[in-house]
Amino acid sequence: MTQSDPAMMPTPGDALSSVSTPRPVIDEDRMARNIGRVQTYMDTHGLSFRPHIKTHKIPALAQAQVAAGAKGINCQKITEAEVFADAGFEDILITFNILGSDKHARLSALNDRVSSLKVVADSMVTVDGLSAWFASRKPLTVMVECDTGGGRCGVQSSQDAVALARRINTAPGLVFGGLMTFPKTGAAEAVEAFFAAAVSRLSAEGIACPVVSNGGTPSLFDAHLVPSATEHRAGTYIYNDRSLIRAGHCTEDDCAMHVLVTVVSRPNEDRAVIDAGSKTLTSDLLGFADHGLVVGYPDAVITGLSEEHGVIDLSRCRGPRPAIGDRLRIIPNHTCVVSNLFDDMVFHRDGIVTRVEKVAARGLVW
Amino acid sequence: MTQSDPAMMPTPGDALSSVSTPRPVIDEDRMARNIGRVQTYMDTHGLSFRPHIKTHKIPALAQAQVAAGAKGINCQKITEAEVFADAGFEDILITFNILGSDKHARLSALNDRVSSLKVVADSMVTVDGLSAWFASRKPLTVMVECDTGGGRCGVQSSQDAVALARRINTAPGLVFGGLMTFPKTGAAEAVEAFFAAAVSRLSAEGIACPVVSNGGTPSLFDAHLVPSATEHRAGTYIYNDRSLIRAGHCTEDDCAMHVLVTVVSRPNEDRAVIDAGSKTLTSDLLGFADHGLVVGYPDAVITGLSEEHGVIDLSRCRGPRPAIGDRLRIIPNHTCVVSNLFDDMVFHRDGIVTRVEKVAARGLVW
Repeated sequence: MTQSDPAMMPTPGDALSSVSTPRPVIDEDRMARNIGRVQTYMDTHGLSFRPHIKTHKIPALAQAQVAAGAKGINCQKITEAEVFADAGFEDILITFNILGSDKHARLSALNDRVSSLKVVADSMVTVDGLSAWFASRKPLTVMVECDTGGGRCGVQSSQDAVALARRINTAPGLVFGGLMTFPKTGAAEAVEAFFAAAVSRLSAEGIACPVVSNGGTPSLFDAHLVPSATEHRAGTYIYNDRSLIRAGHCTEDDCAMHVLVTVVSRPNEDRAVIDAGSKTLTSDLLGFADHGLVVGYPDAVITGLSEEHGVIDLSRCRGPRPAIGDRLRIIPNHTCVVSNLFDDMVFHRDGIVTRVEKVAARGLVW
Repeated sequence: MTQSDPAMMPTPGDALSSVSTPRPVIDEDRMARNIGRVQTYMDTHGLSFRPHIKTHKIPALAQAQVAAGAKGINCQKITEAEVFADAGFEDILITFNILGSDKHARLSALNDRVSSLKVVADSMVTVDGLSAWFASRKPLTVMVECDTGGGRCGVQSSQDAVALARRINTAPGLVFGGLMTFPKTGAAEAVEAFFAAAVSRLSAEGIACPVVSNGGTPSLFDAHLVPSATEHRAGTYIYNDRSLIRAGHCTEDDCAMHVLVTVVSRPNEDRAVIDAGSKTLTSDLLGFADHGLVVGYPDAVITGLSEEHGVIDLSRCRGPRPAIGDRLRIIPNHTCVVSNLFDDMVFHRDGIVTRVEKVAARGLVW
């Protein structure tokens, strides 16, 4: 029994109420509506949509996103991309600086078998490293990553963006693929200002800029406020989570991922302990002071997580409080990192398990 | 190449400097010293030591702990225990309330094949549920979990502990196994007061209390301040981490786990970006304001983690700052949750990879 079912896996047809906890489960219909809602928005505004697969890491879901109208996929690391290339995806953007011969070798192998592979870079060092490797190989398309306020990677000005684009454009083995950013939420004006200036300068220099790629879910429905963008990338929208309710991107009813848990202890009137800790929900706060939203118990506060326990403060709950053995549903603060903890993801409709999909790219951080 | 090596796995004999990043790696000698140091302390103070395998989830490491003198192991969930039972461990304590027929069935199957299996309980509901299941099966040993200040699970008073012990003692299918706590750090007096009172009452009632189990790594070297304890459980000490340096349990030189990362971007003078985010380091803060200790750069502050990027504030660094392509070593805030992100763990000595072990119980939260 053990070795064939270490993860107490549900089977299609099982009642959702019989799934062993803790486990994240995905509502098929909510997910389908999320996919459709965002694709419709993108189509309406003439934006090419490139979903980030990091949120689900499941090829079948990316296929659904492409079937709905998405153009290509976004991965964060080479090994994530390899899994999706294995599944037949031919248009992949890896939004990461790639350095080192170990990674270059994997990247060129990928480039040889995928019809449209792109990476990003934000420094001469990174670009020159790629050029040295790809000079003797099938050319690699490289986009310039721009820091438009996100404060993470990216060139710091539109002038720097053009300088790096110029470098890519003339470097052996590389092709300039356009501009990319991962912006600060709500910063459409800053993004547009940066992009517009860079596109204008590139045009003045006769450097073609085929793609201008914006990203993010929290302000996804403001993507049209960046008219210079030709493409938008987003991942989290497919499941949604508590951070996106707070951002105004979605409602509680649009959250497709619930983490099913069981109350295992009621040590006193005001405390409950559940069987989900940071190894199920993660400790990602994303600006919240507590660890998730307990569906049906809006005044319950998940005050602390150990690795396998969650402590809930019930002191503000006025109605009935959950009892030992009760099953609860939690909307996590951040859905993407929950996916990455589980080898398999369970889907359901109308209280019945519909399918179980392998989280094919789980844990692939290289 | 891809399908046989999705995780860019190192091989024994490889130089540590060639390991693809990001990756946690374990210093064999530091780990061996940690195992020996704690076992010596326990032996000196006449405490039976029961390591918590959650930190490594690797049977070979638990075998090393037992070879050094540990008596049995501690698991947090049934499926963790199953993996270790498969590997031959016969003395297993699962420190969790077990509820539901799905879990009861797995527990009795485990009980049937392991010579000494124990669980804990902190409520009549949990005890009665176990009794109903085990009444017709090989009896299960159940310890009473006591809340001695940890504020998580556990009966709230020594009187309640005795009442629950009485229940277990008379319940069909169950055997009372003693008392257990996961205490608040530094709370030895409170733990001793609770345990001493409960042991005294149990003795007065003629209920044998075979084991009194204390736990935790941060105040592990104060375990002897709880003379009522017969056993101590601890997990994190085997690798150690930044939280344990802060707790005074160990020094930086005792930290066996380093997360190897590469600097992938230097967007400006004061910022570096590494290829490790929350999907490598986790977001566990454990009371810190930042996300890890950068070895050799004491003034560098990991201010933020995305899923696959880490942002480092270098503004306070006076000496040379890391350049793009540099490899850094990070001591994570919390080692146990890092283990749980990776399917395999890499070990090294003198700059050479010695072995790669499967993290056999990774992700098993049921």
